Amino acid sequence: MDSLPTRLNLALPDWVAPHVAAWPEAPGDEARMRLVLGLARENIERDAGGPFAAAVFAEGRVVAVGVNRVLPEQNSLLHAEVLAVMLAEKHFASHNLGAADLPRLELVSSCEPCAMCLGAILWSGLKRVVSGALRADAEQAGFDEGPVFPASHRYLEARGIELVRGVLREEAREAFDLYRKRGGRPY
Amino acid sequence: MDSLPTRLNLALPDWVAPHVAAWPEAPGDEARMRLVLGLARENIERDAGGPFAAAVFAEGRVVAVGVNRVLPEQNSLLHAEVLAVMLAEKHFASHNLGAADLPRLELVSSCEPCAMCLGAILWSGLKRVVSGALRADAEQAGFDEGPVFPASHRYLEARGIELVRGVLREEAREAFDLYRKRGGRPY
Repeated sequence: MDSLPTRLNLALPDWVAPHVAAWPEAPGDEARMRLVLGLARENIERDAGGPFAAAVFAEGRVVAVGVNRVLPEQNSLLHAEVLAVMLAEKHFASHNLGAADLPRLELVSSCEPCAMCLGAILWSGLKRVVSGALRADAEQAGFDEGPVFPASHRYLEARGIELVRGVLREEAREAFDLYRKRGGRPY
Repeated sequence: MDSLPTRLNLALPDWVAPHVAAWPEAPGDEARMRLVLGLARENIERDAGGPFAAAVFAEGRVVAVGVNRVLPEQNSLLHAEVLAVMLAEKHFASHNLGAADLPRLELVSSCEPCAMCLGAILWSGLKRVVSGALRADAEQAGFDEGPVFPASHRYLEARGIELVRGVLREEAREAFDLYRKRGGRPY
C-alpha cells in the first residue's frame, strides 16, 4: 500500500475575511443574502470556485462563511454550505449549532442546498435556512442538486428546521450568468 | 465581528494507518467489509468517535479510509464516508473519483450512507458503494439516517452508481452493540 492519506488542511481564500469585515451588520434576510451574494460574486471574479456562497449568522452577525472550493481544492464535498457549517462548528467548539447555550443561528445560502448539504444542515442542528436561487435555476445553469424531494424538505421541517427559499432569487440567479460569461463550467 | 474562522485542519487518529497497513489485500466485498468493520471496532474501543468506518478501494487495495470523528473533532459532518472520500480525492488530486484516468474505485462503508453521505457519493463520481448494516439497524441503535428514500437510491442508480447493501450485515450490527456496551451514545 502507498502511504495512506491522513490529513486535510482546508482554508478559505485570503480575500474572504476582509470582504466580510467590510460589510455592515445584516439585519434581515435580504441584507444577509446580499452579503452572501457578494461573496459568491467575488468567488467567481477571482476564479476561486463555483458560483456559490453561504454564511452562518448569529442574530445578524456573521460567525462563519463558506464559498464553493470544489475545483481549486480538488475536493467535491467543498460546497459553500459545508465549509460554512464546519467553520461555524469550529468557532463555537460544538458539533451542535442548535445547542441551548449558543445564540440562535441560521444559515444563509446563495442557492437551495443540494442533497448533501441538506443532510449536513440536519446533522448540524441549525434550525433556520434561507436560500436564494432555486433548484430550477441551478439546474438550468448545469448544476445537479441530487436526490432532493418535497419529502426531503418535509423531513427537515418535521425536525423543527425552518426553510425559507427564493430570497432575492433574481439577484441570486445572476451569479450563474456571471459564472458562464467568465467561462466557468459546471463540473 | 470576532475574527472569522478560516482554517480547518482535519486528521485521522494516529492508530488508523498502522491498522490498515497490517491488513492483507482484500479481494472481494466481504474481505473489504471485514477491514472496514475492524476499523469501526477499533474506533469504538479507542473512544475515537461513533461506530462507523469506511474505505475507498482501488481493485482490492485501500487508497483512503475514514472513521466517524463527529464528537472528538466537534464537527457534525465528519462521518466516515466524508473523510474517506475527501482523503481519496486528495490522494488522487482529483475532485472526480470516476475520472477515466483513475483505477476503478469503490467505497465500502460499515453502514448504509445517510442522506448527506449519499449526496457526497454522488458528487465524488464513485460508481460502486458497498455497505454493511442497514438503515433499520442504525435507527434501532438511535442514529438517524436523514431524508433517504427509495427514490434517492434510484436517483444514484440512474447515474450509473451501483449500490450493494447488507454485506456482512450481522457483523456490521455488532458495532452498534459494542458502542452501546461501552457507554457510547447516539448524538
